[in-house]
Amino acid sequence: MISTLAWTPEGVRFIDQTRLPLEESYVVAATWEEVARAIVTMVVRGAPAIGVSAAYGIALGAKITGARTAAEFAPELERICAGLASTRPTAVNLFWAIDRMKQIFAPLAAAGKPLDEIRERLLAEAHAMYDEDISACKAMGAHGADLLPDEGGVLTHCNAGALATCGYGTALGVIRAAVERGKRIHVYADETRPFLQGARLTAWELMADGIPATVLCDNTAASLMRAGRIQAVVVGADRIAANGDVANKIGTYNVAILAREHGIPFYVAAPWSTIDLATGTGDAIPIEERPAIEVTHHGGRQLTPRGVGIVNPAFDVTPVKYVTALITERGILRPPCSGSLRQMELVGAAWG
Amino acid sequence: MISTLAWTPEGVRFIDQTRLPLEESYVVAATWEEVARAIVTMVVRGAPAIGVSAAYGIALGAKITGARTAAEFAPELERICAGLASTRPTAVNLFWAIDRMKQIFAPLAAAGKPLDEIRERLLAEAHAMYDEDISACKAMGAHGADLLPDEGGVLTHCNAGALATCGYGTALGVIRAAVERGKRIHVYADETRPFLQGARLTAWELMADGIPATVLCDNTAASLMRAGRIQAVVVGADRIAANGDVANKIGTYNVAILAREHGIPFYVAAPWSTIDLATGTGDAIPIEERPAIEVTHHGGRQLTPRGVGIVNPAFDVTPVKYVTALITERGILRPPCSGSLRQMELVGAAWG
Repeated sequence: MISTLAWTPEGVRFIDQTRLPLEESYVVAATWEEVARAIVTMVVRGAPAIGVSAAYGIALGAKITGARTAAEFAPELERICAGLASTRPTAVNLFWAIDRMKQIFAPLAAAGKPLDEIRERLLAEAHAMYDEDISACKAMGAHGADLLPDEGGVLTHCNAGALATCGYGTALGVIRAAVERGKRIHVYADETRPFLQGARLTAWELMADGIPATVLCDNTAASLMRAGRIQAVVVGADRIAANGDVANKIGTYNVAILAREHGIPFYVAAPWSTIDLATGTGDAIPIEERPAIEVTHHGGRQLTPRGVGIVNPAFDVTPVKYVTALITERGILRPPCSGSLRQMELVGAAWG
Repeated sequence: MISTLAWTPEGVRFIDQTRLPLEESYVVAATWEEVARAIVTMVVRGAPAIGVSAAYGIALGAKITGARTAAEFAPELERICAGLASTRPTAVNLFWAIDRMKQIFAPLAAAGKPLDEIRERLLAEAHAMYDEDISACKAMGAHGADLLPDEGGVLTHCNAGALATCGYGTALGVIRAAVERGKRIHVYADETRPFLQGARLTAWELMADGIPATVLCDNTAASLMRAGRIQAVVVGADRIAANGDVANKIGTYNVAILAREHGIPFYVAAPWSTIDLATGTGDAIPIEERPAIEVTHHGGRQLTPRGVGIVNPAFDVTPVKYVTALITERGILRPPCSGSLRQMELVGAAWG
């Protein structure tokens, strides 16, 4: 399995996703600031992966702090959490992971536990989140594989694969599980401008697994749908509001509209940590605007005339009305979601 | 005005559209084969521009032939026409221009006219097509400017500007005319993968004219529409079937669906030479598949993993049901088009 991120004695090791697919290289973040930098620069990306990365960043901060007690470390932890939380605004998994680490620290600190014990507990929590993430992907795969056709084309956008998680993937996990069951799936991967996660990362992952894949420019999806080459769409998510609206990589909303227009089911696969019941609808989800240079340049080479205006939102919001089903580790939800999301939160149970 | 193509004593001069916007350089095609090569490699592109380029290519072939009589030149003309016709399959203006030049030659040859006179008449016909193309763009602008909002965002896809014509442009001609009337238009230019005609050419043209413009990745259109930033869409066309279906740059069909979903009018601006009454519907329009390297590489740098499948159709077909109106030099047509296209062909009259 691809090692997206890993805890090592030297720090948090990341496969460098800015250099894939032509160069498979790794960087080690030896401080929490370097973890934050890896998230900002998209060395590591994907909502589940950046959540676990932040957790490891906190564990790393605790490991190398000069503080001698929990009380001494507490204000430093606040700075670490604030620093990691400021890296990217849209994926809610980041804030979920940071909160979860804070909730480990607070009672231990209040109980006056020694910092060494707290360090161990923080690292153990980050490891647990890592393991849970892979388990969730496998569970999403098991639930979602039923939804894909026995044979046909499945379109995906961006990379919601092993590289966006601790392993196996969300949308690509569903595809992997379907292929493991013997379904004959041909993946159509939107190249996903401007960062080209589809052309670079999804294509690389699928080739490594021997799953047939074709890369297309984002603007080609509608004509492939019209030609009958796409039987389903499955994508990941960066944040799902309480009503089921889905924030995901820019262009997802386009694909959702095109799928509905062609009568093709549109599935969203995401772990429960992506669901934000505190945010009522997609309109309240903050959308990150990334630097213009991602659009104006490639490989140091300028594409556009100097000085032209650029808009580069990293995400968009797909209203729940376009979503055929949400695939989570707890089961499959079909809109309307508002009540069922809260109900599943309470019971934690599968929903068919 | 930008000089997209020009007849010179040395041959046909083209601004090199593969090098814009960072380099404004010109190439001179000294033979018809070099004109054909300029069309294939997209040094010159855009349906109206390649039509007139082919006409000049034929005039150039006639100018430099070693034949001494029309009868000697006739088989060479057939080869020239076949060679130019084989450059690109979708834009019908190419075949229209070649046919028009053949129809000049045939009666003069049959009447035994001297080759020098035929040379002059062929060149005069190409010049006439050049002039008519600019006049048609101006007329489209005059008709179409009424359709654009007094103030607001107008999305365009690819480049249907001066660079796609002999000057002024089709879709950008409509925008230019609206701006000349004092309308406050902000243009949103889809970058238009893979060849980036929007990011490179449309942005360059609009900046040269001082028209406010913002470049977006193709997958960003839906979220801008949802945010209320787009009040109209106007695009060009490469071929319009008798029923009004529109073949245009890949991604146009996506934009048309998104526009309808958001209640935004979708206009197609094209000269009458783009209308192909011999082709009943869009399904019968041949769609060019371009080399994979346009998608896999940029500036000699590889983006995708080696060996991954690629699909790279250069055009798609937008069914007429998504078209709010066709803007031609003869006037504006609103679907259903089938009868009205034939009627306008007969009467050549404006249609409100």
